[in-house]
Amino acid sequence: MKKTSFRRRVAKVRERLDHAGLDTLWIIQPENRRYLSGFKAGDGQLTESSGSLLITRTASLLVTDSRYTTEAEAESVGFEVITLKKALAEGLPGLLTRLGTRRLGFEEDHLTWGLHQKLANKLRKLSPPVRLVPTRGLVEDLREVKDKEEVRAMEASADLMSDILAEVFRKLKPGITEKKIAWQIEGLAREGGADSLAFPSIVASGPNSALPHAVPTDRKIRAREPITFDVGVKLDGYCCDMTRTLFIDGPVPRLKKIYKTVRKAQLAGLAEVHPGVDSSGPDATAREIIRLAGFGDYFGHALGHGVGLATHERPRLGPEKPVKLKEGMVVTVEPGIYVPRLGGVRLEEMVVIEKRGVRVLTRDDHLYDF
Amino acid sequence: MKKTSFRRRVAKVRERLDHAGLDTLWIIQPENRRYLSGFKAGDGQLTESSGSLLITRTASLLVTDSRYTTEAEAESVGFEVITLKKALAEGLPGLLTRLGTRRLGFEEDHLTWGLHQKLANKLRKLSPPVRLVPTRGLVEDLREVKDKEEVRAMEASADLMSDILAEVFRKLKPGITEKKIAWQIEGLAREGGADSLAFPSIVASGPNSALPHAVPTDRKIRAREPITFDVGVKLDGYCCDMTRTLFIDGPVPRLKKIYKTVRKAQLAGLAEVHPGVDSSGPDATAREIIRLAGFGDYFGHALGHGVGLATHERPRLGPEKPVKLKEGMVVTVEPGIYVPRLGGVRLEEMVVIEKRGVRVLTRDDHLYDF
Repeated sequence: MKKTSFRRRVAKVRERLDHAGLDTLWIIQPENRRYLSGFKAGDGQLTESSGSLLITRTASLLVTDSRYTTEAEAESVGFEVITLKKALAEGLPGLLTRLGTRRLGFEEDHLTWGLHQKLANKLRKLSPPVRLVPTRGLVEDLREVKDKEEVRAMEASADLMSDILAEVFRKLKPGITEKKIAWQIEGLAREGGADSLAFPSIVASGPNSALPHAVPTDRKIRAREPITFDVGVKLDGYCCDMTRTLFIDGPVPRLKKIYKTVRKAQLAGLAEVHPGVDSSGPDATAREIIRLAGFGDYFGHALGHGVGLATHERPRLGPEKPVKLKEGMVVTVEPGIYVPRLGGVRLEEMVVIEKRGVRVLTRDDHLYDF
Repeated sequence: MKKTSFRRRVAKVRERLDHAGLDTLWIIQPENRRYLSGFKAGDGQLTESSGSLLITRTASLLVTDSRYTTEAEAESVGFEVITLKKALAEGLPGLLTRLGTRRLGFEEDHLTWGLHQKLANKLRKLSPPVRLVPTRGLVEDLREVKDKEEVRAMEASADLMSDILAEVFRKLKPGITEKKIAWQIEGLAREGGADSLAFPSIVASGPNSALPHAVPTDRKIRAREPITFDVGVKLDGYCCDMTRTLFIDGPVPRLKKIYKTVRKAQLAGLAEVHPGVDSSGPDATAREIIRLAGFGDYFGHALGHGVGLATHERPRLGPEKPVKLKEGMVVTVEPGIYVPRLGGVRLEEMVVIEKRGVRVLTRDDHLYDF
């Protein structure tokens, strides 16, 4: 990423401080942190932060501890790196006093109740006191629409993921276990230069394919049954998410019908993804096709979701809380039908929304034209 | 794990409800959830829960959504699996009314401020109203002391980790990159039947070894320099955490002195880990040895930490908030000295505390006797 990208993002956050009634914004969510600062570290465990950002109208601080100082200084752009020698709740009040903070915005979906309580008690006693103000999606809103550099990063991620699946499919034979295939995928991801998988691969064969979130097992794949691969890699921080269902030697008739229905629903959904459309529209269209084919009870999840630095981010392509789709959003379109015991089919493309509709980033091969 | 183990753990939680002034405890932390119920799923992203537990004096509910119903029913022991069709904040009030809940304990270090707020608003309006009561470490306290089955699981995890390192060290030659070694470790973990790595492997050579939390790079390892391997696997849910620093063809004199000091500090620390001892004692002893050798500024982290279902859990072996060590705790003892630019040495064993002291679970090979 260019240095100017980070500066532009921080400038946009600054513009939002006034409207949110804040003089300082505190960012703890790892992808938000990376998006604004360039600092790449993740958080080891839920309760183990590798750092946070403090942004005022004039200052940008990256607050971390000695474990991460070197990386933070090397990776961050435009942030002053502060290495705290004590716990965050102990060190933060002094920094806020230095910044002249009176109203500190925090991310309400990421700060724990316990830490909020502890901090609120300390900040109340400062003079002047600092008030904690909940914020929601302030940075996630910006992340929804990708800039050109981000789209390029996601193209690269989708290319790598498509190459990996093509390689796995070339070698696919009955008798190999789901776990072994998942491991091949991970190996190819690493050899291909991925940072990591974006999420644990799903390789689900036969009846296991009826579980949308199946974990790979020691089951050996067989001919004629559905085998669903839902896989993702992270490359330079950006995720790709992609799903194919394959059949060695083709499907049985009922699964062929299911496959055709899913693909029809997907194409109809893709055709409706445009700037200005409600995010619930494509979902409704795809869902109706599945319902009319008699599988309405077997499509439980939403049609898709945004992808970026996180595998799942805004916007959600589903019936609830619709938003307007915008140019530059990157989303998945992934209908599925899951019939208990029989098996399931899911097809997922990752697309970027352009002026006239979608451009599919994942390579559209390994799709049957039944 | 035996079914009786889960029942015994839930019974212990029930005994604590009264003392905590609760009629219902709500568990959202993934390892706590697994410890009490057997349900193995992790949480995909910070804000994506795969389920939570509601425990009253007489009822045990595992609340999840349709993605996880099958796994929850197959894996959980003694819990009624409830599949919510709506978001947790929408579905929880009805369940609490059914349970007759008046005072609901929540995990203050894991519930976000935002979800707490949303729930508090809804629960206040129920009749009778439900009050949210913060709790801390209620289940983590139980997890501190491992039962026999857990110790066996951690022995198996430590055996696998020791085998993997032995295999990697057998092949170690100058010229291979840190990243490639990290990838070998991951491959051997998978082939050895691990669920996954417990955390991303640290392979840090030369000057990189001076960073306690270095991320593997494309740097090629060389003879005579320190190469630190801090690695962990997870096997049947239980983690092992282990560190060695190696030198191909031996160290330069200053690093030999550092190594000897670290090993001396480790042995002294290990000798002080006993039931009944303050958790700060071994840390102070090891730290003093390092200080007297002139490296006091170069040992920044605590001596060790508990390990179990999580890589980092209670107790902490450090200067702050000492607790009494107990038989059945599993902890690491891992002093280190990190000299910027020159390099560092860290040695880490994972041990179980027994009546007369520690039993080392990690295999004590690949240690120099300088």
